[in-house]
Amino acid sequence: MSHRPAPYPSAPAEQPPDLSPLRIGLLGLGTVGAGTLAVLRRNHHAIARRTGRHMVVTHVAARNAVRAQALAGPGVQVLADAHAVATHPDVDVVVEAVGGTCAALDWVLAALASGKHVVTANKALLAEKGHIVFEAAQRHGRVVAFEGAVAVSIPIIKALREGLGGNQIEWLAGIINGTSNFILSAMRTQGLSFDAALARAQALGYAEADPAFDIHGNDAAHKLTLLAAVAFGMPLRHAQVHTEGIASLTAADSVCAQALGYRIKLLGLARRKPGGVELRVHPTLIPADHLLAQVEGSLNGIVVQGDASGPTVHCGAGAGGEQTASAIVADLMDLARLGGGTALQAVPMLGVQPWATEDLPVLPMADVVCRHCLRIPAATPGNLWAPVLACLHAAGLDTEVISPVPEAAQAPGLLVLTRAAAESAVQQAVAAIGALDGVGGPVVRLRVESLT
Amino acid sequence: MSHRPAPYPSAPAEQPPDLSPLRIGLLGLGTVGAGTLAVLRRNHHAIARRTGRHMVVTHVAARNAVRAQALAGPGVQVLADAHAVATHPDVDVVVEAVGGTCAALDWVLAALASGKHVVTANKALLAEKGHIVFEAAQRHGRVVAFEGAVAVSIPIIKALREGLGGNQIEWLAGIINGTSNFILSAMRTQGLSFDAALARAQALGYAEADPAFDIHGNDAAHKLTLLAAVAFGMPLRHAQVHTEGIASLTAADSVCAQALGYRIKLLGLARRKPGGVELRVHPTLIPADHLLAQVEGSLNGIVVQGDASGPTVHCGAGAGGEQTASAIVADLMDLARLGGGTALQAVPMLGVQPWATEDLPVLPMADVVCRHCLRIPAATPGNLWAPVLACLHAAGLDTEVISPVPEAAQAPGLLVLTRAAAESAVQQAVAAIGALDGVGGPVVRLRVESLT
Repeated sequence: MSHRPAPYPSAPAEQPPDLSPLRIGLLGLGTVGAGTLAVLRRNHHAIARRTGRHMVVTHVAARNAVRAQALAGPGVQVLADAHAVATHPDVDVVVEAVGGTCAALDWVLAALASGKHVVTANKALLAEKGHIVFEAAQRHGRVVAFEGAVAVSIPIIKALREGLGGNQIEWLAGIINGTSNFILSAMRTQGLSFDAALARAQALGYAEADPAFDIHGNDAAHKLTLLAAVAFGMPLRHAQVHTEGIASLTAADSVCAQALGYRIKLLGLARRKPGGVELRVHPTLIPADHLLAQVEGSLNGIVVQGDASGPTVHCGAGAGGEQTASAIVADLMDLARLGGGTALQAVPMLGVQPWATEDLPVLPMADVVCRHCLRIPAATPGNLWAPVLACLHAAGLDTEVISPVPEAAQAPGLLVLTRAAAESAVQQAVAAIGALDGVGGPVVRLRVESLT
Repeated sequence: MSHRPAPYPSAPAEQPPDLSPLRIGLLGLGTVGAGTLAVLRRNHHAIARRTGRHMVVTHVAARNAVRAQALAGPGVQVLADAHAVATHPDVDVVVEAVGGTCAALDWVLAALASGKHVVTANKALLAEKGHIVFEAAQRHGRVVAFEGAVAVSIPIIKALREGLGGNQIEWLAGIINGTSNFILSAMRTQGLSFDAALARAQALGYAEADPAFDIHGNDAAHKLTLLAAVAFGMPLRHAQVHTEGIASLTAADSVCAQALGYRIKLLGLARRKPGGVELRVHPTLIPADHLLAQVEGSLNGIVVQGDASGPTVHCGAGAGGEQTASAIVADLMDLARLGGGTALQAVPMLGVQPWATEDLPVLPMADVVCRHCLRIPAATPGNLWAPVLACLHAAGLDTEVISPVPEAAQAPGLLVLTRAAAESAVQQAVAAIGALDGVGGPVVRLRVESLT
């Protein structure tokens, strides 16, 4: 032990400064609200060690005030009126954990107008109404923090805005909907149909009773909207995200992807191009040996390509009460540190200074160029090689692979992997192939990304 | 386009504030220094969009001033005297990119004493002399930022101190030496010997001419020292990290690991236990289907287990000039935002407020409990089952697997996977087995971690 260095600091420890605690008003005591309360309490000392300030939930708004009071304990003022909590003079920061885009919007705006910072994990609210929310925050000189809105346990907003902030982000691609990823993993590893995999996800609590929002890609589109804004310093362009879900995928598609050396993932992709940005959510074949392909089950994973950093990959839980609380508390810690700091000391909400937002256009899907995988159902695929190749050739498409669909897929037909081609050429080829004699059903067309 | 929301901000854009630029003095113009200069220049506009301030390298210190002046251009003052740059009145922040622990220490201390913040990626300096450096920074009210010191392209210091700051970190495990990982990947995928894999790494620039520091685990131990400090709020305990390297591994070990469903990785492990912290660097068998096992080649990857977040995985390049610059520029951006902010607005250098550092003891290796893989060389392994099992039993070890070494390993013998056991029991068993008649060489013993 003789070489053990003196602890840092070696001088007698300073005492903790006598700062006022950060007073938190919590709207909603569902999974996320209760998780936030639990983490703030359990880790109270650990959090104060880091920030030098205590954090106290002073007010809670909940519909069932009796149940909420029992959960929150006697020291907390529980009100049924969320607006009253959002604007209460004894609250410094409001945590919005009610969800939805209507009442939540009113309460967030009321909190900002009352001079409070807001923390929220509400991706729908921010993706759809963020232009209102962030404008109000800026007008009132307050911060809206939203680390929990994307890939909850992964500090990806902080990574994009700060940790990778010295980079020009070239593209990012993320598995940002855990429900869809669970379903796709179950289809691949257990050979389940989409419906069977969805049922399993529902039974295990990974999918909601009405799964539409997850399986049709809307949730991923919300998150991609936020990621693209902070990555590129562009406005929220939710309505322009090209969005496809996974509901039409079959076990046969999964088998075909594997036969070609790929796995199917529902990706959110944002790519900076000279004329603007591609923003798209769709099922995508990615190389089976890519790290992102190994992100299975309900996990989330995001690859970020920076011009200096090269690719970084960030993985973790995409949902859950305490997992979301991890992000919400991190946001609260940033706000506790900011104190009465200036606007320039706060990291800009959407990544760049408001005056530096670039009104980048979202590029039309017709301009997107990538490889495609086509599965062409046919009773006797052998007879289709020549006419299919003719259709591909007529559309100007080169092929990397053409082969019978593997027997394991139990869906006879032809499998084609094209070279990179424009959307319009692929559509032309798919239409022509679909009209061929001997093609026994709709041609399945999936995009392929190498993520390099 | 009619539903396109108004860009944020919708009000006429504010003009950029007229802040003085952050003036940077750069010590050293090698790979990291030149990379930093290149990234600051190429991304000058993008960085200013984020921070609202310009960053300018005003001074460079380099031994070969003529070459440096040619690289830096006419607007930069190039001096051969690093001390003069470190203390120059026209410099706000000093970037130390010279390496080493002697002259670099002097210059860093001189910069702090002159009232400058310091950014460095020098893990050796901070792990070995950090108690001096951070104490000086605290005394002078300045910040020493070191994101680039660990897993350069991955913002892992920021993730631990901020993004996951609401968690109590339970453990972390990292592939934090790219050279070793490249060698282990080459041994596994190409069946190379250690020497052949090292030679390949050297030929490709992934290993230095003298690779000792990387292959014996010292570099990983430096990084683990820093990670543990910021994860647990404990002092730098470099001298107490249990450190083993990879130089004694053989292709046979790699084959055996795969046969059991594992891959060998050089891990840095830090684990919070009731009585203190485990700090250890050693080759480790981890499950082949764990995300960390897929981190191959020269990449780095770190798993962090937080009590609220659950596991998160962070991967990216572990070396390179621009990759390191990505981290250094992120640190500069934090400092540009801090401006004249208070100590409480700065994230504490070692993760917790100085008064909250916990003098956690490093637990002795004798207390570490984990599973082990034993490879027992023997000409006729069949005869050894009974005596080996007797030795294991005598040491109180239960076995999960006992089998002949796979033929592909070309190293006849027995392969044993034990259940979790204390170090002392394993040592006792290894000594007893090594003394058995018929054992044809040293028993290879590797630790096994499930990382769950």
